[in-house]
Amino acid sequence: MRNILIIGAGRSATSLVQYLLNKSQEEELFLTIGDISINNAKKLAAGHPNAVAEVLDVHNEQERRDAVQNSDLVISMLPARYHIEVARDCLEFGIHMVTASYVSDEMQSLHNKVEAKGLVFMNEIGVDPGIDHMSAMQVIDRIRDNGGKMLMFESFTGGLVAPESDDNLWNYKFTWNPRNVVLAGQGGAAEFIQEGTYKYIPYHRLFRRTEFLEIEGYGRFEAYANRNSLKYRSIYDLEDILTLYRGTIRRVGFSKAWNSFVQLGMTDDSYIIPNSEELSYRQFVNLFLPYSPTDSVELKLRHNLKIDQDDLMWDKLLELDIFNKDKKIGLKDATPAQALQKILMDKWTLKEHDKDMIVMYHKFGYELDGVKKQIDSNMVVKGEDQTYTAMAKTVGLPVAIAALKILNKEITTPGVLRPIAREIYEPILKELESFGINFKEKFTDYLGYNPDNIAG
Amino acid sequence: MRNILIIGAGRSATSLVQYLLNKSQEEELFLTIGDISINNAKKLAAGHPNAVAEVLDVHNEQERRDAVQNSDLVISMLPARYHIEVARDCLEFGIHMVTASYVSDEMQSLHNKVEAKGLVFMNEIGVDPGIDHMSAMQVIDRIRDNGGKMLMFESFTGGLVAPESDDNLWNYKFTWNPRNVVLAGQGGAAEFIQEGTYKYIPYHRLFRRTEFLEIEGYGRFEAYANRNSLKYRSIYDLEDILTLYRGTIRRVGFSKAWNSFVQLGMTDDSYIIPNSEELSYRQFVNLFLPYSPTDSVELKLRHNLKIDQDDLMWDKLLELDIFNKDKKIGLKDATPAQALQKILMDKWTLKEHDKDMIVMYHKFGYELDGVKKQIDSNMVVKGEDQTYTAMAKTVGLPVAIAALKILNKEITTPGVLRPIAREIYEPILKELESFGINFKEKFTDYLGYNPDNIAG
Repeated sequence: MRNILIIGAGRSATSLVQYLLNKSQEEELFLTIGDISINNAKKLAAGHPNAVAEVLDVHNEQERRDAVQNSDLVISMLPARYHIEVARDCLEFGIHMVTASYVSDEMQSLHNKVEAKGLVFMNEIGVDPGIDHMSAMQVIDRIRDNGGKMLMFESFTGGLVAPESDDNLWNYKFTWNPRNVVLAGQGGAAEFIQEGTYKYIPYHRLFRRTEFLEIEGYGRFEAYANRNSLKYRSIYDLEDILTLYRGTIRRVGFSKAWNSFVQLGMTDDSYIIPNSEELSYRQFVNLFLPYSPTDSVELKLRHNLKIDQDDLMWDKLLELDIFNKDKKIGLKDATPAQALQKILMDKWTLKEHDKDMIVMYHKFGYELDGVKKQIDSNMVVKGEDQTYTAMAKTVGLPVAIAALKILNKEITTPGVLRPIAREIYEPILKELESFGINFKEKFTDYLGYNPDNIAG
Repeated sequence: MRNILIIGAGRSATSLVQYLLNKSQEEELFLTIGDISINNAKKLAAGHPNAVAEVLDVHNEQERRDAVQNSDLVISMLPARYHIEVARDCLEFGIHMVTASYVSDEMQSLHNKVEAKGLVFMNEIGVDPGIDHMSAMQVIDRIRDNGGKMLMFESFTGGLVAPESDDNLWNYKFTWNPRNVVLAGQGGAAEFIQEGTYKYIPYHRLFRRTEFLEIEGYGRFEAYANRNSLKYRSIYDLEDILTLYRGTIRRVGFSKAWNSFVQLGMTDDSYIIPNSEELSYRQFVNLFLPYSPTDSVELKLRHNLKIDQDDLMWDKLLELDIFNKDKKIGLKDATPAQALQKILMDKWTLKEHDKDMIVMYHKFGYELDGVKKQIDSNMVVKGEDQTYTAMAKTVGLPVAIAALKILNKEITTPGVLRPIAREIYEPILKELESFGINFKEKFTDYLGYNPDNIAG
C-alpha cells in the first residue's frame, strides 16, 4: 500500500479524491484525508475501505508531522499560505508533495534541498495555474520544435456559470471564493506587453479595457487583464516575445457593470464602515454618493456614473436590489468589499441544481518560414453537479494524476516544480482528455495587434 | 541670552529666522541654525551677530544631542519623520520644542512625560496644520461662548500661484514639495460627514467631486476632499457635528484636468517603468493607452478619457507638452508618479519673479436661539518674493511667534500640544495680523447642504 495524505477537504478536493479512490485497489493506494473539520473529511472518504478521515489541524505541529511522516506523498489543498510548513516537513522526512497553488518565494527557496533529496514538489498543477501551463507549453514546444518563433502569447481563464444555469443579467454566479471575485484586480496596476510596448492599466480602469473572445457553441466572452503577465516571460522562456497578456474571462457586459462598483469605491477593503451591521443596502450605496436632501439615491447614482436610462447596466444593478431600504448589510465592522460581497451573495450563489463552467482560451502568435501564423486554443469544462463541479474537476484531476505518476515514478525529475516540462504535461494532458478536459485548436492567419507590421 | 536651535534650514524657514533675528536684540535671542548643508544654514544666518550656522546631521546622535543640550528651545523644521529623535533629546534635557508638523503617534506618546517635566512641545503650528487650527478654534469658541451649537465645519487650504504670476492654463505652479502634489489624495478613500451621513470618495473619483468657493477680489476656487476629515471631531470637540469636511484648494478646472492623470494611472508610485530614462514624454503617455499600430497617442488619449475637441482640458495637456517625441523622462528607475513630476516641473516651476499665494477658507454653520446661521471666513496671503514666500510666512511666523511666547512664559501649559487653546491662538493670531495674515468674515444665513431640513 502507498499512503497518500490529503490535507484540506474543501469543495475543490472532491474530484481529486474520487480519482484516487477509483484507482485505489488496482494501484494499491490508501488515502488519509485530514481536515480541521472531521465532517468535511468524512464526506470525502465516504466510508471507502481504502480511505480514512482524520481531524488535522495544520497549525498543530505534532499532529501535522505525524501525519506527514506516515505517508509516501502529501497533497496539500490548503490555502497557499499554509503549504510551507507542510513542505518543510515533507523535505525533512523525504516525502513527495503536490499542490495546486502558485510557488511562493519560500517554497522556491527549498528547491536545491528538495532536488538534492530526489524529491518531487509539484506545484501550480490545478486549472489556473495548472492546465493553463500544461496546455500552453504543449503548443509552444510544438511551435518551437517545428522551427517557429513565438510572437504572441495570450491566455485567459474564467470560472463561470454553465449556460443551462445562467439565469441572471450578469451571466455570472460565484463558483469559487466570492471574496477573491470582489477583490479581483486590486493591489497595483495590471502590467503586460503588446507588440513590444509595455502597457499598464490602473485598477480603476481595468474593467473598461477588456478584450473579446469567441468560442464556437458558447458565443462571446470578454476578458480583463490579470495583474502580472510579465512573469511568464521567464517561466515559459518567452523573454523576447512581443505580446504577452493574461486575463480573466467573464460574459460580455459583466465588466462594464462591475466597473460601477469599482468607480463608486464599493470594492475597497481597507477601511471599516461605521455601524455597518444596521446599514440598509440603500444606505450602503448612498455612502459613495454626494449628499442631497431631495435627490434619490437612484438618480444620484445614475448621474454619478453617467448611466443612460436605457442602459442594461441599470437593470443589472436593480437585479441586485442594491436600492432596497429594508435589507440590512447585517455584518459587524464590515469593509465596503465585505458589504458588497454580502449583497452579491444574495443573488449570485449557485442554486442546488446549478452547474458551473470553466473556460480557458489561449492565443499563440508565431512566425514560421517568414510567415506569421496564429493558433487559438480553447477548453470548456462543465460541472456535473454541485459536488463534482468544473472547478473541482479541473483543479483536482491534474493534481491527482500528477500524484499517482510521481508515486509510480513516471514523473521523476526532482525539485520544486511547475508542470511545464514535456515529461509532465504530455501524459497528464493525455489522461485529462479521457475526462472530457481537452482543447480545441483553430489555425488562422496572425491577427495579433499589428499583423501588417505598420510602424506605430 | 536665550539660545534657540533651529534644525533644518530649508525654504520654509526664511520668515521664521527673519522674525527671530529682528527680535534678537530686544529679546536677547541667539539662534543656532543647523542643517546638513552648511550653505543653507549660512544663507539664513546671513552673518547676523546673533546667529551662527552649523552643520548638523540629525542622524548623528552625538552632534544632535550636543546641539539640543546647549539650547533653551528647539525648533525642528525637518520632515515630520525626523522629529521624534529630537523630541526624545528635548525631553531628556528638559528643553521646549516647536514643530509645524502633524503630531505623530510616537510624539503623542511622550505627552505625559513632557507634561510632568513642565515642558511645552508645540506642534501643528504652521499654516495647515497651524493657522487653520487657530483661526477655526477662535470662531468655534466664539460661537459656543454665545450659546451657539455647531452644525457644520468645513475648512479648505491651498498653496497656489499669486494672480500676477498666474500665467498657465492650469492656474497652478509648484509652491511646495512637487512630490506631495503628485501623490495628493492617495492611500485610501477620503472620508467625511455631511448632514449626519458618512461619505466616502475613492482616490480615482476624488478630483471629480469638488466644491466651489468664492473669495471677493480673487474669484472662484474649487476644493477636493482631504483624506481624513473625521479626526477633527475629537481634536476640535465637534463629536456631534452633522457636517465635517476638509479639502485642498485649487483654481477651478485644475481638478478636472488633473483627473486625467489619475485616470490614466500616471500618479502611481508603486512600480518602476522599464527603461524610464530613455522614454520620451510621448512614450510615457502611451504606456497607459491601448496598443495601436496606426492610431495616434493623441486620439487614443482623447478617446480613452472621452475628451471633446473643444474641451479646455485638452489645451491644458498640450501646454504640458506631454506628446513630445524628443523630450526624455531622463530619470532612471522612475515610477509613473516620478516621471509625471518631471514633466510637470518643466512647466510648473516658479520663475524668478513669481509670487505664491496661500488661500484658506472656513465655513462654520451653527444654530443660535433656534436660528441657523453661517460664518464664512477666508484668508489670502501673497508671497513677497521667492525667499519670503506666502508659504514661508504662513508656516514660519506662527512657529516663530509661538517659540518666543514659550520662552517668555506667555504660553505655559505643558505637554505635547496643538494650538487649539485660547491662551495660544488669541495672542498668536493677533500678532499675525500685523504681518498681514488675517481673516475676513462674512455672516450669512445657514446654507449647509440641507438648510430647510428636508427629510433625505
